[in-house]
Amino acid sequence: MGSMSAPGKSRSLPVAGTRKVLIEVGTRLMLAKGYNHCGLEEVLKEAKVHKGSFYHFFKNKEDFGLQVIDDYASERLGALDRELADMSRRPLERLRRYFELAVERQRSLEFRRGCLFGNLGQEMAGQSEVFRSRLEEILSLYRLKIAGCFREAQAVGELWSEYQVDRLAGFCLNSWEGAILRMKVAKSAEPLEEFLFVMFEGVLGPNPA
Amino acid sequence: MGSMSAPGKSRSLPVAGTRKVLIEVGTRLMLAKGYNHCGLEEVLKEAKVHKGSFYHFFKNKEDFGLQVIDDYASERLGALDRELADMSRRPLERLRRYFELAVERQRSLEFRRGCLFGNLGQEMAGQSEVFRSRLEEILSLYRLKIAGCFREAQAVGELWSEYQVDRLAGFCLNSWEGAILRMKVAKSAEPLEEFLFVMFEGVLGPNPA
Repeated sequence: MGSMSAPGKSRSLPVAGTRKVLIEVGTRLMLAKGYNHCGLEEVLKEAKVHKGSFYHFFKNKEDFGLQVIDDYASERLGALDRELADMSRRPLERLRRYFELAVERQRSLEFRRGCLFGNLGQEMAGQSEVFRSRLEEILSLYRLKIAGCFREAQAVGELWSEYQVDRLAGFCLNSWEGAILRMKVAKSAEPLEEFLFVMFEGVLGPNPA
Repeated sequence: MGSMSAPGKSRSLPVAGTRKVLIEVGTRLMLAKGYNHCGLEEVLKEAKVHKGSFYHFFKNKEDFGLQVIDDYASERLGALDRELADMSRRPLERLRRYFELAVERQRSLEFRRGCLFGNLGQEMAGQSEVFRSRLEEILSLYRLKIAGCFREAQAVGELWSEYQVDRLAGFCLNSWEGAILRMKVAKSAEPLEEFLFVMFEGVLGPNPA
C-alpha cells in the first residue's frame, strides 16, 4: 500500500461513480483474497482509478476496508429487510426465503467466495480491534433482525412461545456462517442445504430433521 | 521460507522430540497467524531447531502444514473418541461432554485461537486443493463420528428414530465451527454457550431452546 498522500495534483473532480467502482472492486478482491492480500495497487488498476481519486474518498486502506464492509452490510441487511417485510408470507417463511436466496447467490459464485463477514471475521478478529468491533456490530444487528422475525413468528403461533428467541437467533446466524465456511471446504452446496433443512424443518419447524 | 535444501552438514541425528517440538510450535503459530503468515524462520527460531533437522522431518512448508493439521486432527478426534467411548454416560451426554470440554479449552485460550480446521479452511480452501481436500477429509470423519453417536442415541431411544442423522451430524459440526468463528469476532463465550444450549436442549433435547 502506498503512502497516505493527499489527493494528487489533478484538479479535476473524481467522476461520479468512482467511489462505487472502487468499492465494487474492493469487495470482489476482499471476498476472493481477504483484506491483507487485497493490494491497493491492484484495486486501482482493476478499477482504472488514480491514487489521487482514491484518497479523495478514503483516508487509507483501513478506511477503505471498513467502507467495503459497511457497503456489503447495507446490501445484505437490505436484502434481509426486504424479505422480512414481505407480508404475503408467514414470518419463518420470510426468513427461510432470505437464506434460500443467499444459497442461490453462493451457488452463482460456485461456492468459492463465502461471506465477507465470516471471511474477514476469521482473518481480522485477532489482528485489528477496529475491524473486529465493526464486524461484531454488524453481526449483532443481523442477530437482532432474526430475533425480531422469531418474535413475530411467536406472535402468530408459528414458533413455540417458550423459545428463547435471542439465543435461537444467535445460533441460527452462527450456524449459517459455519455452513458457509464448510461449503468452501467441501466445495458443495450440501452444508447450506443441511442448514436450511435442519434449521427450518427441525429446529424451527414442526417436523424432525 | 528458505530453499528446500537437503538435511544440512551436521551428521548428528535429530534429537528425539525435535519433530514434536516443531509440530507444537507450528500448531501454535498457525492457530495464531494462519498458514501463510507462519514463517519457517520463526518456527525454527522458536523451536530452537536448525534448518537441516527440519528437512529431516518435512519435505517443505506445505508438508509441514499438512503434518500440523494431521497432528491436530489426531489430538481432537482422539478427544472425541475418548468421550464417545464413555459408557457411563448416555450417547448424547457423551457428545455434549466433548463440546463442553472444547468450550473450556477455548476459554483457556481466551477465545482468541479458534479451531485450526476452521481457520485454515477459511484461509486455504480457495488457495490450495491439497489443504482443502485434507481438511474436508478430516471434517467428514468428524461428521461420521458424530453421526455414529446419533445412531447410538436412536438405538437407546434418546433421539427420535425419524431424525436423518447424517444431515443432523453435518449441521451440528458446521454450527460448532460457526460458533467458534463468531466467538473470535465477539471475543466471548456466548456463541459457544448458545450452541450448547440450542443444540442439546433444543435440537437434540426434549426441551425447546
